[in-house]
Amino acid sequence: MTTQHQARAGRPRSEKAEKAIIEATLDLIAEGMGVAELSIEAIASRAGVGKTTIYRRWANKEDLVVDALATLREPLPPLAGESVRDDLIALLDVVRREAGQRRARCVMNVAMGETDRSKRVSERFFKLALEPRRVAMRRVLGRGVANGELRPDLDVELGMALLSGAMIWFSKWGPEGDLPEDLAERVVDHALEGLVSRR
Amino acid sequence: MTTQHQARAGRPRSEKAEKAIIEATLDLIAEGMGVAELSIEAIASRAGVGKTTIYRRWANKEDLVVDALATLREPLPPLAGESVRDDLIALLDVVRREAGQRRARCVMNVAMGETDRSKRVSERFFKLALEPRRVAMRRVLGRGVANGELRPDLDVELGMALLSGAMIWFSKWGPEGDLPEDLAERVVDHALEGLVSRR
Repeated sequence: MTTQHQARAGRPRSEKAEKAIIEATLDLIAEGMGVAELSIEAIASRAGVGKTTIYRRWANKEDLVVDALATLREPLPPLAGESVRDDLIALLDVVRREAGQRRARCVMNVAMGETDRSKRVSERFFKLALEPRRVAMRRVLGRGVANGELRPDLDVELGMALLSGAMIWFSKWGPEGDLPEDLAERVVDHALEGLVSRR
Repeated sequence: MTTQHQARAGRPRSEKAEKAIIEATLDLIAEGMGVAELSIEAIASRAGVGKTTIYRRWANKEDLVVDALATLREPLPPLAGESVRDDLIALLDVVRREAGQRRARCVMNVAMGETDRSKRVSERFFKLALEPRRVAMRRVLGRGVANGELRPDLDVELGMALLSGAMIWFSKWGPEGDLPEDLAERVVDHALEGLVSRR
């Protein structure tokens, strides 16, 4: 991105200011400040810089927010590619590990927000931070259907909704405190085996 | 609530203003204005009343927001109480029917918001609007375990997470457009039967 490139080419002092601005933006979003409500004033004040320091680097708030959120990109967990169950657990366990951290709070606040005013930002963030995980999970479920581990009539989107939805539900509405360490494993096993009695 | 009582005792003109204030509050929340960011000024301006008209009825913003959100309370759907599957579908189908409506947007924006600043409001709203549905679903799942329809080792909270989480996931992140009419039924059947192949 041009803005990042410019900053990298700048002096160390410049880089420090940029980092403070990015951190302030992420902190405010994580605290629940909607992207639409977020102001350059609030970011400048939190970062301890002047507004002109921000405008020297970013043309507008949207560009700054997109650059800030881009720093939250995380690599996918390594997948063994053997059992579908194990790969699903690896993918969902990322959600557990991130729960409550600033990244997860930003994801929730940006991706769950219903406001049309920040739609452009949400969509760019979705593509960047969430879509790669969805693609990976869709691929694992599709592999399971193809190799017979999963039912042949599986609705892959529905499988994703059950698995990812359960993790999100626990993160937001489960019992207080840290998520149980074996949560991803239990979610996957309940979803794979189903809730009905087989006795 | 005292505030509502006072308003009801007032003149018709007063009731009309109160309705406009409540509607303005809900519209702003549905549009993505965080409870923390919401101001009496913004509500007054949207409702076309003066700030004093609001302060005559509500001591502060939190009380107004709680009263406004309280109007979103919905009765539970009737449950036949025969098959667990049918009762679960009835409970989840409410989520599908409400998706995209103002009530659902308010629920999402209030209940998903991570901000500590509006925690008191979120908690009161959660108790009022969401907890009765969770209690009903927990009871249906518990009945299924007791009567043998569901597996004896079912983790009831986990079952709730899979079922409700899938509906929320589809509402927020599914394909664009209205949710499919049979979504609740398909979610319940996938969750009950499980994703693995039984051939």
